[in-house]
Amino acid sequence: MTHDHSSCCGGHGHHHDHSHGDGATGAADLSGPAESPIVVEVTRGGMVESVHRARACIVDAGGRVLARWGDIDAPVYPRSAIKALQAVPLVESGALDAFGLGDAELALACSSHNGEPVHTERVAAWIARVGLTVDDFECGAQIPYDAETAAALIRDGVAPSAVHNNCSGKHAGFLTTARHRGEPTRGYVRFDHPVQQRILGVMEQMTGQDLSRAPWGVDGCSIPTIGVPLGAVAYAMARIADPVDLPDARADAVTRIAKAWRAHPHLIAGRNRFDTAMMQASDGLVLVKGGAEGVGCAVLPESGIGIALKIEDGGDRAREVALAALIRSTKVLSDAQWARAATLLEAPLTSRVGQPVGVVRAAGGWLVGS
Amino acid sequence: MTHDHSSCCGGHGHHHDHSHGDGATGAADLSGPAESPIVVEVTRGGMVESVHRARACIVDAGGRVLARWGDIDAPVYPRSAIKALQAVPLVESGALDAFGLGDAELALACSSHNGEPVHTERVAAWIARVGLTVDDFECGAQIPYDAETAAALIRDGVAPSAVHNNCSGKHAGFLTTARHRGEPTRGYVRFDHPVQQRILGVMEQMTGQDLSRAPWGVDGCSIPTIGVPLGAVAYAMARIADPVDLPDARADAVTRIAKAWRAHPHLIAGRNRFDTAMMQASDGLVLVKGGAEGVGCAVLPESGIGIALKIEDGGDRAREVALAALIRSTKVLSDAQWARAATLLEAPLTSRVGQPVGVVRAAGGWLVGS
Repeated sequence: MTHDHSSCCGGHGHHHDHSHGDGATGAADLSGPAESPIVVEVTRGGMVESVHRARACIVDAGGRVLARWGDIDAPVYPRSAIKALQAVPLVESGALDAFGLGDAELALACSSHNGEPVHTERVAAWIARVGLTVDDFECGAQIPYDAETAAALIRDGVAPSAVHNNCSGKHAGFLTTARHRGEPTRGYVRFDHPVQQRILGVMEQMTGQDLSRAPWGVDGCSIPTIGVPLGAVAYAMARIADPVDLPDARADAVTRIAKAWRAHPHLIAGRNRFDTAMMQASDGLVLVKGGAEGVGCAVLPESGIGIALKIEDGGDRAREVALAALIRSTKVLSDAQWARAATLLEAPLTSRVGQPVGVVRAAGGWLVGS
Repeated sequence: MTHDHSSCCGGHGHHHDHSHGDGATGAADLSGPAESPIVVEVTRGGMVESVHRARACIVDAGGRVLARWGDIDAPVYPRSAIKALQAVPLVESGALDAFGLGDAELALACSSHNGEPVHTERVAAWIARVGLTVDDFECGAQIPYDAETAAALIRDGVAPSAVHNNCSGKHAGFLTTARHRGEPTRGYVRFDHPVQQRILGVMEQMTGQDLSRAPWGVDGCSIPTIGVPLGAVAYAMARIADPVDLPDARADAVTRIAKAWRAHPHLIAGRNRFDTAMMQASDGLVLVKGGAEGVGCAVLPESGIGIALKIEDGGDRAREVALAALIRSTKVLSDAQWARAATLLEAPLTSRVGQPVGVVRAAGGWLVGS
């Protein structure tokens, strides 16, 4: 292993010592931009059938890159993996407290939820409390991720609404902040609306990047998603894990967000979902959040580090297994905790009659010995 | 471009001239095994968000490799992409004619259908005609791919059955052949059952490979799927396109199968499905079939060539767009036909409110000028 001679977080807005990484975490090649390695393999019977490649890194709150794979300086759309950052203005503006909202709503603001009743009923009550209705959401309707809930809607003849959108908690947070600040709620998803501009500012400060010329696109829920170097996303996660160098108000906000995220793993996603299962197995030692197109983030408060991952092809199955493997490499969780999370590290594939036919697992050679 | 110095189909069982490829079809590097190139890119706003890699080749019925990308000598599980080959014994055994079945049933034997009523009612009638019931299927139940049909089952309180399994037509063919030959139907999915052993023989003869030591796994519908070099899969497709060198009975069988495949594009897949849309847009000039884990095949009878494709990560969206791009490179279809298939070459991505936010398309530089 070579030492790292670059930090993950150039740009402005922070004052960390960019000392060399110590490479303590893994067996990664730290020699700079490289082809995305194969990190996940999908087996079936006698051979590996498919593989997934990724860029990934593990970073501490000082900006030191502890381990890296592939080009972590290239941008990634972080999508829903950084909902915790998008929730910062909800806390910092005072909106959350002004409307008497609490940790459950804050967790929902950070969630990509299943649309189960436990999620949608809380979002509906929340939006009513701020004097708005489902018609104020601009995220669009979505069939719930949770198959049981989706079937129940069909049986009841109820069309899915924006409340069932997996992002409805985040959008409730946006609307709440706009209401609290007296801003127009209509158009809150647009790039130039104060709601989105505040988030852009949070992203710049937390990632230590000048994003004024960053590429951007429109997310599935209609808000902007900004291209940020993958290493800088991990750095922002590390600063949630260890906010000691953040300004006081921001440190308080991300600490409160992390507490809510940790306290409500079921609200973050829901049943049969990786994020919820991984956090429950970890007894709250790890906060995780996936996003569309294979983006995954993790916050490890005990060790003050952050992880960011982008599956090259955008595959969900690879994001989950690779994120579990990266978390395992940090040695934060015990063997007993991993025993409860065994199917997250190696996900079984079954035929339609339930016969095991293969697995999705970390690729041979990747993270060996971790 | 360099000339190809290898054929796709070593091994036994055929007598073709393994002359050098002429590289007429594309801009591929023909210099042998190589990293799988990026063939599909997924854009969002200002940047490419995800990419997909593939192995692929275009081969003629003489075994000449006209174009290749990545390692085409490495095995692939062809999954459902070679259902046309799995239907050969149904015809050759005389079972299809003996039970008074026709082109519609033969197309269903080649299909990965949507489970729409047009598919399931025919399969149910077929299986009754051979004196069997849904309980004889060993493929397992499946929620229909078609969302409208799936919702209708929920509304009606009907549990999906094996008839809704996308492979139920193929399994009806297996059962029909076993009945016709007086073989036990129970266990027809097992590797050593005569039904599967006959298919192994067809695979060996059509691909020109000794598969006695090939890796194999269990497919989602419980039957064996055999690892075959990707180039040899394309070769088998080319021999369907141009069966002139096949033994008479086999040539007659694959000609009849191709005719049924061509005549019933809706039975092959169904509404909102790539295979059906691609074949309809081509006015029957191209036969296509996708399989799980990113495998795609095409048969081009007019030019006597076959195409096989394996997306490295198994992604469906990439398989569809890449297969369309490969077909386009053969110049078999007219501009007017491609105008009808525009969204197959470049598939739009939309937000949940329907706003266009990106596309899935052939990667820049791949197949340039084709």
